[in-house]
Amino acid sequence: MQSLVAVIMGSQSDWETMRYACDILEELHVPFEKKVVSAHRTPDYMFAYAESAEERGIKVIIAGAGGAAHLPGMVAAKTTLPVIGVPIKSQTLNGLDSLLSIVQMPGGVPVATVAIGKAGAINAALLAVSILGTYEPTYMEALRKRREAIRKQVMESSDQLE
Amino acid sequence: MQSLVAVIMGSQSDWETMRYACDILEELHVPFEKKVVSAHRTPDYMFAYAESAEERGIKVIIAGAGGAAHLPGMVAAKTTLPVIGVPIKSQTLNGLDSLLSIVQMPGGVPVATVAIGKAGAINAALLAVSILGTYEPTYMEALRKRREAIRKQVMESSDQLE
Amino acid sequence: MQSLVAVIMGSQSDWETMRYACDILEELHVPFEKKVVSAHRTPDYMFAYAESAEERGIKVIIAGAGGAAHLPGMVAAKTTLPVIGVPIKSQTLNGLDSLLSIVQMPGGVPVATVAIGKAGAINAALLAVSILGTYEPTYMEALRKRREAIRKQVMESSDQLE
Amino acid sequence: MQSLVAVIMGSQSDWETMRYACDILEELHVPFEKKVVSAHRTPDYMFAYAESAEERGIKVIIAGAGGAAHLPGMVAAKTTLPVIGVPIKSQTLNGLDSLLSIVQMPGGVPVATVAIGKAGAINAALLAVSILGTYEPTYMEALRKRREAIRKQVMESSDQLE
Amino acid sequence: MQSLVAVIMGSQSDWETMRYACDILEELHVPFEKKVVSAHRTPDYMFAYAESAEERGIKVIIAGAGGAAHLPGMVAAKTTLPVIGVPIKSQTLNGLDSLLSIVQMPGGVPVATVAIGKAGAINAALLAVSILGTYEPTYMEALRKRREAIRKQVMESSDQLE
Amino acid sequence: MQSLVAVIMGSQSDWETMRYACDILEELHVPFEKKVVSAHRTPDYMFAYAESAEERGIKVIIAGAGGAAHLPGMVAAKTTLPVIGVPIKSQTLNGLDSLLSIVQMPGGVPVATVAIGKAGAINAALLAVSILGTYEPTYMEALRKRREAIRKQVMESSDQLE
Amino acid sequence: MQSLVAVIMGSQSDWETMRYACDILEELHVPFEKKVVSAHRTPDYMFAYAESAEERGIKVIIAGAGGAAHLPGMVAAKTTLPVIGVPIKSQTLNGLDSLLSIVQMPGGVPVATVAIGKAGAINAALLAVSILGTYEPTYMEALRKRREAIRKQVMESSDQLE
Amino acid sequence: MQSLVAVIMGSQSDWETMRYACDILEELHVPFEKKVVSAHRTPDYMFAYAESAEERGIKVIIAGAGGAAHLPGMVAAKTTLPVIGVPIKSQTLNGLDSLLSIVQMPGGVPVATVAIGKAGAINAALLAVSILGTYEPTYMEALRKRREAIRKQVMESSDQLE
Repeated sequence: MQSLVAVIMGSQSDWETMRYACDILEELHVPFEKKVVSAHRTPDYMFAYAESAEERGIKVIIAGAGGAAHLPGMVAAKTTLPVIGVPIKSQTLNGLDSLLSIVQMPGGVPVATVAIGKAGAINAALLAVSILGTYEPTYMEALRKRREAIRKQVMESSDQLE
Repeated sequence: MQSLVAVIMGSQSDWETMRYACDILEELHVPFEKKVVSAHRTPDYMFAYAESAEERGIKVIIAGAGGAAHLPGMVAAKTTLPVIGVPIKSQTLNGLDSLLSIVQMPGGVPVATVAIGKAGAINAALLAVSILGTYEPTYMEALRKRREAIRKQVMESSDQLE
Repeated sequence: MQSLVAVIMGSQSDWETMRYACDILEELHVPFEKKVVSAHRTPDYMFAYAESAEERGIKVIIAGAGGAAHLPGMVAAKTTLPVIGVPIKSQTLNGLDSLLSIVQMPGGVPVATVAIGKAGAINAALLAVSILGTYEPTYMEALRKRREAIRKQVMESSDQLE
Repeated sequence: MQSLVAVIMGSQSDWETMRYACDILEELHVPFEKKVVSAHRTPDYMFAYAESAEERGIKVIIAGAGGAAHLPGMVAAKTTLPVIGVPIKSQTLNGLDSLLSIVQMPGGVPVATVAIGKAGAINAALLAVSILGTYEPTYMEALRKRREAIRKQVMESSDQLE
Repeated sequence: MQSLVAVIMGSQSDWETMRYACDILEELHVPFEKKVVSAHRTPDYMFAYAESAEERGIKVIIAGAGGAAHLPGMVAAKTTLPVIGVPIKSQTLNGLDSLLSIVQMPGGVPVATVAIGKAGAINAALLAVSILGTYEPTYMEALRKRREAIRKQVMESSDQLE
Repeated sequence: MQSLVAVIMGSQSDWETMRYACDILEELHVPFEKKVVSAHRTPDYMFAYAESAEERGIKVIIAGAGGAAHLPGMVAAKTTLPVIGVPIKSQTLNGLDSLLSIVQMPGGVPVATVAIGKAGAINAALLAVSILGTYEPTYMEALRKRREAIRKQVMESSDQLE
Repeated sequence: MQSLVAVIMGSQSDWETMRYACDILEELHVPFEKKVVSAHRTPDYMFAYAESAEERGIKVIIAGAGGAAHLPGMVAAKTTLPVIGVPIKSQTLNGLDSLLSIVQMPGGVPVATVAIGKAGAINAALLAVSILGTYEPTYMEALRKRREAIRKQVMESSDQLE
Repeated sequence: MQSLVAVIMGSQSDWETMRYACDILEELHVPFEKKVVSAHRTPDYMFAYAESAEERGIKVIIAGAGGAAHLPGMVAAKTTLPVIGVPIKSQTLNGLDSLLSIVQMPGGVPVATVAIGKAGAINAALLAVSILGTYEPTYMEALRKRREAIRKQVMESSDQLE
C-alpha cells in the first residue's frame, strides 16, 4: 500500500524515540515507511530521498535528529512537502541543541517542530495525520475519536490518585 | 471568499510580527482571516473560535503568542485541525519563554512550532500553504516557484558582496 | 467538610510531586480536594472546573503542570481566585520549560508561581494556607508554629554534622 | 486609611517597574504603602519591617528585586503573610537571575513569584487584590469587572489590525 | 583553639558538599567551626551569627547554599568580613540557580563566589587560607607546598594514561 | 591567483560579520574567494560547491551562518577539507542557536567552530592561515609576526588607561 | 606608595567596567596599580606579572576579563595570592560566558568571582579591601563607615519614590 | 616515529573522553603523543609544552578540558599551530561551561572547537587528520575511505529498524 508518511531519522539510535511516531501511525492505520537517512553521513541519499518523496506519493515527512540536527531543515530545503522535525534528546545538552537546530529555520524554508523526545515523536505522528485529515475526513474522524478516548482516560485517572 | 487559513494572535502588539505571515498568504493568493484572540483575556471566545473553525471551512490555524504563550496549545486542544505556533519575541527573555511554552506540548496534542519572531511568522504561512498543497497542487506549485525565485536571488546576491 | 483548597494537576504522573502539597494541607488541617484536570486533554472540563470553583466554596487553587504547562494560567484566566502554579520537573529540560510557561504570564492574569518540583509543591500548600490565614487567624497561627518547629530542627541539625 | 498591601523594592531604580503595581492598587482602591527596603543595604530595617508588617495591619507584601534578588525570600522568612516576589529585569542577564533567585525557594518558606518586569508588577498587584478578595467580596467583584473591561478591549482590538 | 574560618551551610544536606571545604582546612591546619545556619528557616540566628563573627575572632566566612541561595549574600550584608559563597548543586537546575543567586550581588555587598559543588567547596577553603595568608606567611607557604605536590601528581598521572 | 581559502556565508546579511575574516586574509596575503551559499535556499549549489572545492585547489573552507545554521555542517558532510564554522549573532537568541547548531556535530563529520560574531570571523581566518601554515612556513611566520605586533600594542595600551 | 592591590584587565576596552573598581579603591585610600594584561595576547607577561606580584608587595589581585575569560584563572594558577575575577559583559552572550569561564575553576586553584559588569567591579574592590581588612583594622573600619553611609542613603531614597 | 598530533588533556579523568580521539588517530595511522597537561596545576609545563611543540615536529594540538576550560585557549596563546579544543562534559553544567570557555576566544587567538564529549573527541581527531591532509594526500584519502565505509553502514542500518 502506498506510504503517505515518511518517518526518517538521522541515526539508528534515534529509533528508540521515533518508534513512538510509528506506533501512532499504525494505531491510526496510516501507511508509512521508515528509514535511517543521515544528513551528515549520507548527504546525497538524503537529497535524493527528499527530492523524490513527493512523486513517490509521500504527503508528509517526519524527521528526527539530535545535536546539530540538520536533517529536518535540509530535507525541507529539498521538498515543498510539509516536514515535521522531532528534536531527539541529546547526551550532553538534553536536546536543547537539537531543538534550536531544528526550530530556528530562516524565513523561506519551514520545519514544523514538535517537543523534544518521546512526546514530540507522538505529536509528530498526530500532526501528520491531522495534515492528511485536512482533506481526508476519515483521518480527522480518527483523531477526534482518539481524543475522546484520552479525555475519558484522564477523567478516570482522577479517581486513582493516591 | 472562504478563508482557508486563520491567523490569530494573543495581543494587538503581536501584529508587528504576524503581519509577515499575512503578507505571505496574500502573496500566494491564499484566502485567510486574521483576529486577536487572547487565551488569557478572552478564554471563552478562544474556545468558541477554535471549536467552530473547522466547520467554518478553516483548514489550518496559525497562532502567534509571547511569554507564557498558551494560545497555540489551547487552540490545538480544542480542534484537530493543524495548528502552527509562532513564538513572539518577548521583552525579557527574547522569546525563549515563548518558544518553550509553545513547543514542549505533551504527547496527544501537537502544535507545529516555527522560529521565534519574523522568520517564524513567514514560515508559519509557508507551512500552512504547504499543508494546503498536499491535496491542492496549485499551492504546491506556487511554493515551488517562490523557492526558485529566491534561489536566483541568493545566487545573484553573491556578486554584490562588498 | 467544605474544601477550601483545590489541588489539581495536568496528569496522573504529576501526583508524585503534588502529593507533597496534599501532605502539608493534611498536616495543617485544611480541607481540600484533589483532581486530575488536563488543559490539553480535558479543556472543557478544565474550564467548567475553574469557572465553578469559587461558587463551590474553593478559596485557593493549586495547579501543577509540566512542559508546556498551560493549566495554571488557563485556570487563572477563568477565575479571579488566587491560582498557585507548581512547575513539574520535566523529562528533557528539568522543568525550566514548565517554570517559564507558568511564570511569564502577561499583565492581567496572575499566577503565583513557586519552585520547580517537590519544594514548590510544599510551598504551594504553605502559600495557600497563608492566603487563608490573612483572614483566618488559626491558619496563620498554625504556620507560625510550623516555622518555629522547623527552626528548632535546623538548630539541632547543626550538632549532627559529620 | 490602613494600608492592606505593602509594596517594597530593593532599590530606588526598581520604582520604574514597581510603579505599575501601585497604579493597579490605586485603580482598584486598595490602600497601600510603598518603601525602598534593601535586603543587602538595610538588612536590619528589612527584618524589622517584615516582622512588624502583620501587626500593623498589612495583609499582603509585594517585594520587587533584581539580580541576586534576596528581598522577597528574606521578607518571607520573617513573616507568614503572603509575599509576592517581582523579578526586576537585570542589566546583564535580563532578569533570569532575578527570577531564579526569587522562585527557587526551599520547601518551608514560599514566595509567590510573578513574571519578570512590568507584566509581573501588574500581576503582583492583581494577585494581592485577589488574595484580599478571598474574604472581601468587593475586591473580587472589582477584579471581575476589570477582566470584563479588558475582554471587551481585546475583542475590539481585533478590528484594528493593520 | 580560636576558629579563624567559619563554614556554614543552609541545610544539613549541604554537608555532603561542604565537607570537602572542611577536609582542606584540616589538611592545612586552619582552626575552623562548622554550623548549619539557614537564611530562611533561622533568619534571626543567621543575623546574630553574622553580626558576632568578627568579634569572636572569625576572619573569613564560607557559606554554602542551594536553589534560591540567600545565605552567603545575607551574611555578607551583616558583616564586612570576607564571605565566600559555595553554590550547592540543586535538584532541578544543577546549581545554575544557586550560582546566579550567590554571584549576582548588587554593588556594595560582595560575595566571593566559587564553582558549583565539590570543586567550589575545595576552592572556598583554599581561598580562605589564601586570605589568611596575606598576612600569615605560614599559610601562604602551606598553599605553595600543596600546589607543588599537586603539580607533581599531575606530571606523574600523564604516564598512567590508558 | 589560485584561491586557497573559501569564505562562504548563508546570507548576504552575514557579510557584515564575515568581512572581518576577509580583512584578515587580505592582511596576510592569502588568496581567497567569497560567496553567498545558502544551505536552505540553494541546497544543490551548496553541494556542488562543497564537492568541487578540493579539486579547484581550495585548502580550507570558512562558512558563516546564523539561527538553525546548517551551512558549515552540510558543507563538511560533502568534503573532507577542514571546514571552519562561524556562528553569526542571531536576532532573537544572540547566536546561541547558531553556536549549538554548528558545534554539536555528531561523531564523524567535524566542524572547527569559533566564537559567535566578529571575534569568530577574525579567528576563523587566523585558524585557516595556521592550517595553511602547517606546511607553508611563510604563513606560520606571518602569524608569528602578527602576534608579536599585537603583543606590543597590548603592552602599550596599558599606559593609556584613564 | 607601595601598591597593595593590582587591578588588571584583559583588554583596554575592559577599562569602562574596571574603572569602577579603581574608583572604590581611591575612595577608600587603598594604594593600587592598574594594568592591561592579556592572557591570550601577552601570556608571558601575564605569567611574569602574576609570579612576581607577591614579592612586589601586592596582597590581592583583581582581574577583569570577558568571553572565554582566562585571565583570572591563569593568574591564580601562578600565585597563591587571593585573585578576584570580574566577568565583563560580553557582546554576544551578555557575560554568561565570562562568568562561567571564571567561576567554574577546578578544585585546587580558586578564583573569587563577583557579579557580571559594573556591580562586580565595585564589589571586587570592596572584597579586596575586606581581605586587607582582616588584619588591617582601618580598612575594616572604612568599610563599616561606607556601609552605614549607604544604609542612610537607602532609607532616605524611600521618601523620594514617585 | 615522529608524532604529528599531540593529544593533551587537563586531567587524568578526561582520558575517558579523549581516548576516543586517540582511537581515531590509531585507526588512521597518524603518529601522536598523549599527555596530561593542566593549565591550572602545571602552568609552566603547559607553556613550555606549547612553546616547543612546533619545533618538535607537532603539526596539530588537540586539547580537552572541562569546566573553566583554559587549556586549549592558553596553549593557543603560546603557539601558532592549529589548536583543537574538546569541551569535556562537566559534572554540574553538562559541559556548557566547558564549551563557552573554549569557543568564545577573543579575536586574535583561535581555538577550533568541536562538540561536547565523545563526539567532540572523535571529531577533533578527524579534524586533525583533515588538517594534515591538506598537504598529505594519503590522509585525505584515508578520510574519504572512512566516510564511504560509514555511509554504507548507515544505509544498511535502515534495514535493521525494529
